[in-house]
Amino acid sequence: MYLLPVTERTPIPYEEALARIVAHVPPPKPVEVPLAEAAGRVFLDTLVADFSLPPFRRAGADGFALRSRDVEKASPDRPVRLRIVAELAAGRTYDAPLGAGEAVRLMTGTAFPEGADTLLRLEDGEVEGDTLVVRRPLPPGRDVFEAGEDIRQGEVLLRPGDFLTPGAISVLATFGRTRVRVGRRPRIGILVTGDELLAPDEPLVLGKIRESNSFMLGAQVAMLGMGAHVYGVVPDERELLYARVRSALEEVDVLITTGGVAVGDYDLIPETFRRVGGEILFDRLAFRPGQLTTVAHVDGRMLFGLSGNPGAAFVGFYIFVRPYVLAYMGLSPERALHPRVPAVLEEAIPGRRRLPVYARGCYRWEGGRIVARTLGPDSSSYLSTLVRANALLYLPAGEDLPAGTEVETVLLDVAPH
Amino acid sequence: MYLLPVTERTPIPYEEALARIVAHVPPPKPVEVPLAEAAGRVFLDTLVADFSLPPFRRAGADGFALRSRDVEKASPDRPVRLRIVAELAAGRTYDAPLGAGEAVRLMTGTAFPEGADTLLRLEDGEVEGDTLVVRRPLPPGRDVFEAGEDIRQGEVLLRPGDFLTPGAISVLATFGRTRVRVGRRPRIGILVTGDELLAPDEPLVLGKIRESNSFMLGAQVAMLGMGAHVYGVVPDERELLYARVRSALEEVDVLITTGGVAVGDYDLIPETFRRVGGEILFDRLAFRPGQLTTVAHVDGRMLFGLSGNPGAAFVGFYIFVRPYVLAYMGLSPERALHPRVPAVLEEAIPGRRRLPVYARGCYRWEGGRIVARTLGPDSSSYLSTLVRANALLYLPAGEDLPAGTEVETVLLDVAPH
Repeated sequence: MYLLPVTERTPIPYEEALARIVAHVPPPKPVEVPLAEAAGRVFLDTLVADFSLPPFRRAGADGFALRSRDVEKASPDRPVRLRIVAELAAGRTYDAPLGAGEAVRLMTGTAFPEGADTLLRLEDGEVEGDTLVVRRPLPPGRDVFEAGEDIRQGEVLLRPGDFLTPGAISVLATFGRTRVRVGRRPRIGILVTGDELLAPDEPLVLGKIRESNSFMLGAQVAMLGMGAHVYGVVPDERELLYARVRSALEEVDVLITTGGVAVGDYDLIPETFRRVGGEILFDRLAFRPGQLTTVAHVDGRMLFGLSGNPGAAFVGFYIFVRPYVLAYMGLSPERALHPRVPAVLEEAIPGRRRLPVYARGCYRWEGGRIVARTLGPDSSSYLSTLVRANALLYLPAGEDLPAGTEVETVLLDVAPH
Repeated sequence: MYLLPVTERTPIPYEEALARIVAHVPPPKPVEVPLAEAAGRVFLDTLVADFSLPPFRRAGADGFALRSRDVEKASPDRPVRLRIVAELAAGRTYDAPLGAGEAVRLMTGTAFPEGADTLLRLEDGEVEGDTLVVRRPLPPGRDVFEAGEDIRQGEVLLRPGDFLTPGAISVLATFGRTRVRVGRRPRIGILVTGDELLAPDEPLVLGKIRESNSFMLGAQVAMLGMGAHVYGVVPDERELLYARVRSALEEVDVLITTGGVAVGDYDLIPETFRRVGGEILFDRLAFRPGQLTTVAHVDGRMLFGLSGNPGAAFVGFYIFVRPYVLAYMGLSPERALHPRVPAVLEEAIPGRRRLPVYARGCYRWEGGRIVARTLGPDSSSYLSTLVRANALLYLPAGEDLPAGTEVETVLLDVAPH
């Protein structure tokens, strides 16, 4: 009589698993891209303002530049008449200082003439030939932007590790950066295992199901603005799997597999990861779904062996692959983590959890807070909850969670942002 | 004496402006795309489950399928011995009904043999040759998924207008949809106007600034997962602008312009929109920034004349262009709108607002709520606040807003989701 040979695995908390992954993120690899392709990338340089903004005193509206002291006694009955000495199109300048009794017509953004200190808006302007009639006083500084009031020369605007938002792209253009140094994106591969898997265009037969994980994971990668190479379905054959993983590793920085992680002897991923030279970072989690998630590191590349269950693979991507990919691009680990926000449980969840869980759920806003609930009976193999969920609720192990408990919640990308 | 000819414009609330835009969204145009490219698109069909899921009773773990009544008296001292009649690889089936005293070894996902009603997990299995030794009773249904317990045949899984999330992609694959009908994305063009604009690689000269809006708007489009054709900078010349807009309209569904909307006589966008046959939906907002935003509709295409000020162009894209683009792809107008969430002001904002405002600000989570503040003195021409903001705070016109007031807030895409 003997026990089946079951690999000894030590479960670790998911926070520890994440820490081990983050510790193996290589330094970002700089690539130079045209500014027009830089949105959504991570900046690796420092952007210092090499001039002030506005670079010169500029008009904040279309109208007339004048000297406030010339019109300080103006009134509807006793208007002041100023001579319009120039009319400037956008981008033109008036190069002489403005004299007493003079005005210059100009447009929003035009350099303000020396000597002028305020602006009469075009729609308030009353013109007779080349004379401007002003019927009220104007305080100095009205609709005038001082040089440097927005940004001062020498100011640091972007730092290494900053995510390039549309606002960041705007300052890069303004400061003349037509090409920018950003972190290279990892090349990502997806490989699914399992003899029970059919392609989506194959007819169903008893005992088999259609393969959906490569599509789901490809979609998760696409939602990060990236692409992935899909290596397709590999049967549960030791040598074939080894050959496929080894050759995929010559082409990618991140290889995501699904299936083949369970403790049965047909489950080959941990062994394969070792055979390709991988150092196993963990092969068991004290966390659900995805208890048998196996992650290995080999020469600056990362192998994510996710569960074959769609729910577990989905969560595994979100909590492990995503932060790694974003940190690989140059985001700091703190910013690369999936953000969790507090939500108020709107149902009681009885304490039957041996392990902490990411439960699929739904959230909505109510009274200034996020309220959330789980989607009822669930399993990591279910697709129905995967398609309906807009949140993952972090439920700690053990204790009952009464309605009203605050739980940390991941809000999922259910619509574009 | 005469007043300058200033176009008469009637300001409308931004909600009304948005309603006019939404009323002109054409019905979505179906295109068929491969499933691997469908993430982030809007589904135009209905997905009905044409079989149940699981399609058959399946094992929820690696182990041994058996009959619970065979082991109901098993104990550590009086184990029950079952004969292992088959060992099934993934995807294989056992075609005879399981007899009394029999067990089948199988893997997660394998079809459960007829007659078996529970599972002993592999790691709990004690095997002697072809005999399984069971030392405790097992309740029926343990680690067994019933056919249809996830999804029932005939269930509606996706409806027209649903956003294709990774979870949606997963069910599409499972139900064999290798090509899916989605809404066509609009072709988007960007055209900036202004004689004062230099290209980002040109040296600065007095009176001019570098053009940044086409890059910023291109980045905003890119953050929606789309591309835009950039028509570059067009000088403030009536005929040239007309020719460029007219020819751009032959290539795009959405044309975004910046600049040229102010009331001065160099400001040509409203006139140009009329000349190309556009019906002006509005040319003045009772709202800041972007009071002079001008939007026109021509033969199923939309012309968005945004302000030349980067802050106003940024907001204009977010509140008008973005919902139009998403609704064009097939999202319902409600889901296409930029979501606003309640935030608690952490500063007092004195009531000096003649119009409602989207103020650039920063938000963070605190005590289960979002707290937010504005970024100090601001102008729609400022870039410094554009690069630092992670939120837009909706401040109603007029009244003082004491600290603690709840304001509707847009959370901006400052990191990937």
